[in-house]
Amino acid sequence: MKLKDLGEFNFINRISKTIKLSSRVIKGIGDDAAVLKYTKNKYLLFTTDMLIEGKHFNKGDKAGLIGRKSLSCNISDIAAMGGMPKFAVISVGLPGSLDLKYADELYRGIKKIAEKFRVDLVGGDTVCSEKIVINIALIGEVEKENLALRSGAKENDIIFITGNIGGSIKFRHLNFTPRLKEARFLVKNFKINSMIDASDGLLADLGHILKESYKGAVICEKSIPASKYAAGFDSAVRDGEDFELIFTLPERHAEKLKSIWPFRTRLSKIGRILNGRKGFTLVRKSGKSEKIKPAGFTHF
Amino acid sequence: MKLKDLGEFNFINRISKTIKLSSRVIKGIGDDAAVLKYTKNKYLLFTTDMLIEGKHFNKGDKAGLIGRKSLSCNISDIAAMGGMPKFAVISVGLPGSLDLKYADELYRGIKKIAEKFRVDLVGGDTVCSEKIVINIALIGEVEKENLALRSGAKENDIIFITGNIGGSIKFRHLNFTPRLKEARFLVKNFKINSMIDASDGLLADLGHILKESYKGAVICEKSIPASKYAAGFDSAVRDGEDFELIFTLPERHAEKLKSIWPFRTRLSKIGRILNGRKGFTLVRKSGKSEKIKPAGFTHF
Repeated sequence: MKLKDLGEFNFINRISKTIKLSSRVIKGIGDDAAVLKYTKNKYLLFTTDMLIEGKHFNKGDKAGLIGRKSLSCNISDIAAMGGMPKFAVISVGLPGSLDLKYADELYRGIKKIAEKFRVDLVGGDTVCSEKIVINIALIGEVEKENLALRSGAKENDIIFITGNIGGSIKFRHLNFTPRLKEARFLVKNFKINSMIDASDGLLADLGHILKESYKGAVICEKSIPASKYAAGFDSAVRDGEDFELIFTLPERHAEKLKSIWPFRTRLSKIGRILNGRKGFTLVRKSGKSEKIKPAGFTHF
Repeated sequence: MKLKDLGEFNFINRISKTIKLSSRVIKGIGDDAAVLKYTKNKYLLFTTDMLIEGKHFNKGDKAGLIGRKSLSCNISDIAAMGGMPKFAVISVGLPGSLDLKYADELYRGIKKIAEKFRVDLVGGDTVCSEKIVINIALIGEVEKENLALRSGAKENDIIFITGNIGGSIKFRHLNFTPRLKEARFLVKNFKINSMIDASDGLLADLGHILKESYKGAVICEKSIPASKYAAGFDSAVRDGEDFELIFTLPERHAEKLKSIWPFRTRLSKIGRILNGRKGFTLVRKSGKSEKIKPAGFTHF
């Protein structure tokens, strides 16, 4: 049996089934970041992302944008937990034949995002590699009352998404801005019952919330903000790497949120959380309902 | 200009020259791990290591040993700071054509070391990659009084090393045991002025201590525990991936340390820290002195 035959092989989830964790781990594998005991009022958050040439970027892409993306992905994970990013360590694998200029552009891209989001770059590792590989691990913090998990969605919660989705492969996957200020606004001003960043595609990522929360959902095609760069609606909801926020909150807060939302970032109400037995449904523009299998971007 | 033309190109050190860090960073890039403000009595430690197929291991190597090595390297870094490892996140890049069995062996190797050293595996990332790549980032903790940096060596300190060095490429680089219990014994019972784990070779790593501490040193060939697997003494002191501890402490404690050392692990007194103007000298068995250029393992 080969990895590619497994379809959605996820090494990390596979590990998670067999490990025992200490009482210091509030949430281990299975959310956007791990949640760890820290101080009286705060949790520590911990996440990691690996980007590989040919998969997450191409060698022809601007090095500065690759650097930018490598840190932004991680910041997006911390944002989706409701937290603030703090400290990053960076591992890079680079070919010996690479131009020094290219390496310098790469790190300037990382540095710019680090400065913008006040992340301290505190360490790393440099290795020689045929293909360019970048791994950034990021520590963040979140006030206990602001923590947002995938697992907290409640029946009748309204489902929102920021921005537009789909077609990010055209360029946005390299130059997106992590929705940190939006996420912080949300957790500080509302009871956000669940949140995730859209990296595997809307259906797959909302699917993660439903699975972790043991809930169902109904979403409406006409409310879903498909990007003009997506190859149609059905592709938009399965494309990966949007790095938008998908979140749910109680209905009584949904209208208030729409009315006080202070950002230019688009905010769309796309559906409602249902009882777990109701499954996951998409209502087409025609009014027809479809059962959803929440597959998205696959890694193998 | 290509990276390989720079010789000792180190992406991370290159970054470190241009970044400003917040006051929460006690020690950023340039030690075995970053040191961060944490609680009243403790610092947080943060480190990362990337292993790539064909460079740090070969595909023919046992997957369990590769897993073992990937976490052990990081634990060795935390040990060299005087700390205890706590939480790890694991990124793996694997070919789709890889056997599921191989992936399972890999993670069992990681898990075994995690259990032995009480590290919680709390998250990670799985990506598709032509070559196998593993990156582990590890958070540790250290009591403030037990922190051991590269930069603290004092004139007349005695220099020690654990174990035997050189020739680890034959097999020990895959199945070494990080010197965590030895390091914890040292920092709890002695004033360890400086410490590093030997990953670039004795001369290069002791060179790091001297550079960071602005000191010189004299070491004696006859006291240096070259492994029988090394291709001679000159190779032993430049071979990488020993993962032994090199440390220095005041002379008045050196004899006591030798007499109460409770481990089977060999402990060798190999030289003395000198004033920075005296440079770095090796005394040959013949009695002849040689100036050392502390080059070791190069990454490109």
